[in-house]
Amino acid sequence: MEKYRIGIIRVLTTSDSKILEAHGVLLEKYFPRFNTVSRCIPDQLMGVHNAETEALAIPKVITLGRKMAGEFDAIIVSCAGDPGVAGLREYVNIPVIGAGEATAFLAMKYGNIFGVLGITDEPPPAYKKYLKNIVGIHRPKTVNNTLDLMTEEGRKAVFEAAISIRDAGAEVIAMSCTGIGALEICQEIEAHCSIPVIDPIQAMGIIAYFECLRRS
Amino acid sequence: MEKYRIGIIRVLTTSDSKILEAHGVLLEKYFPRFNTVSRCIPDQLMGVHNAETEALAIPKVITLGRKMAGEFDAIIVSCAGDPGVAGLREYVNIPVIGAGEATAFLAMKYGNIFGVLGITDEPPPAYKKYLKNIVGIHRPKTVNNTLDLMTEEGRKAVFEAAISIRDAGAEVIAMSCTGIGALEICQEIEAHCSIPVIDPIQAMGIIAYFECLRRS
Repeated sequence: MEKYRIGIIRVLTTSDSKILEAHGVLLEKYFPRFNTVSRCIPDQLMGVHNAETEALAIPKVITLGRKMAGEFDAIIVSCAGDPGVAGLREYVNIPVIGAGEATAFLAMKYGNIFGVLGITDEPPPAYKKYLKNIVGIHRPKTVNNTLDLMTEEGRKAVFEAAISIRDAGAEVIAMSCTGIGALEICQEIEAHCSIPVIDPIQAMGIIAYFECLRRS
Repeated sequence: MEKYRIGIIRVLTTSDSKILEAHGVLLEKYFPRFNTVSRCIPDQLMGVHNAETEALAIPKVITLGRKMAGEFDAIIVSCAGDPGVAGLREYVNIPVIGAGEATAFLAMKYGNIFGVLGITDEPPPAYKKYLKNIVGIHRPKTVNNTLDLMTEEGRKAVFEAAISIRDAGAEVIAMSCTGIGALEICQEIEAHCSIPVIDPIQAMGIIAYFECLRRS
């Protein structure tokens, strides 16, 4: 089985290899054709969770991505804000996949009224671009950054937010935080809400797979 | 590696197992997690290549799909016209993927002006639904049905049609015949045209993969 070499850029600075590789481990489970290597940008211990931290991440993602490009068949920026995705594409000649672009794009296939659930107060850019009719709240109470999601309270808040979004009329929920995808709770939330829930980790992987297939 | 059981409905009636299984063989190559079984509808020796043959195929696809549903994780209707796809979904509780829906949907990610290249005079329904700005011719000269594609002349005509479509201003070509995907020439055409070319076999496989992932 031919393997694809997938470089993953994490926007959460960490020296804990388990946290660093969490998204890559899931991608390799979902996509046995992927060999992943994860690297993180420097000095963002709280990740990307608002406009300021997103802006800070952009040049760092581009710098890291340019260094990584030679080793991989594709690069995934594992953040729904897609920081640096457009910029990095200008420099490298391999596919650059943004988690936000992939998730919002695929969400379009599942309905016309969208809920966006993540850790920012505003839907990330790709969600605004692709999803014309967004209803419902999108930041769970008590969750301010990707670390808060790893607590029991954070997890519970995500379920509550999903129900609120459904009750606001959403036909589909596009998760707007890869940290939520990493919890592997989207399927459970979908069963709970009875509307499709798009998982950013699966979505970015599927789009990366398609890009690799198209070139192999 | 957990495998997904994928049922493939062919709309070309054939007793030649090599022709019957051609799309499944490609899908298993692209997606090692797929185990495919291909079955064809009866009495369509020329496949689906116009409105009349599409209409004839619809009830046959629904009947065959209902019989197959119990054995598979997903069913793919391997025809860009998506005959019976919407109808079959009413009867079964597994994902039903149409090649046309998958291809046209994914094409939207690659541009705003579309060429549609297939064996029908009109773009199939999903292409009209998703692709708002279609330019360029779509039926290669000398190609009237899926069998014509298997000749050297047919293959050459596809390349010529692709260039005409690009010259008409298309930013992306959405192939509208799975028989063209089965020739595995989309990558070569893309290199020749310098615009993205979306392969229906890859596209329907990617969407089926996503549907299986979402449920596993």
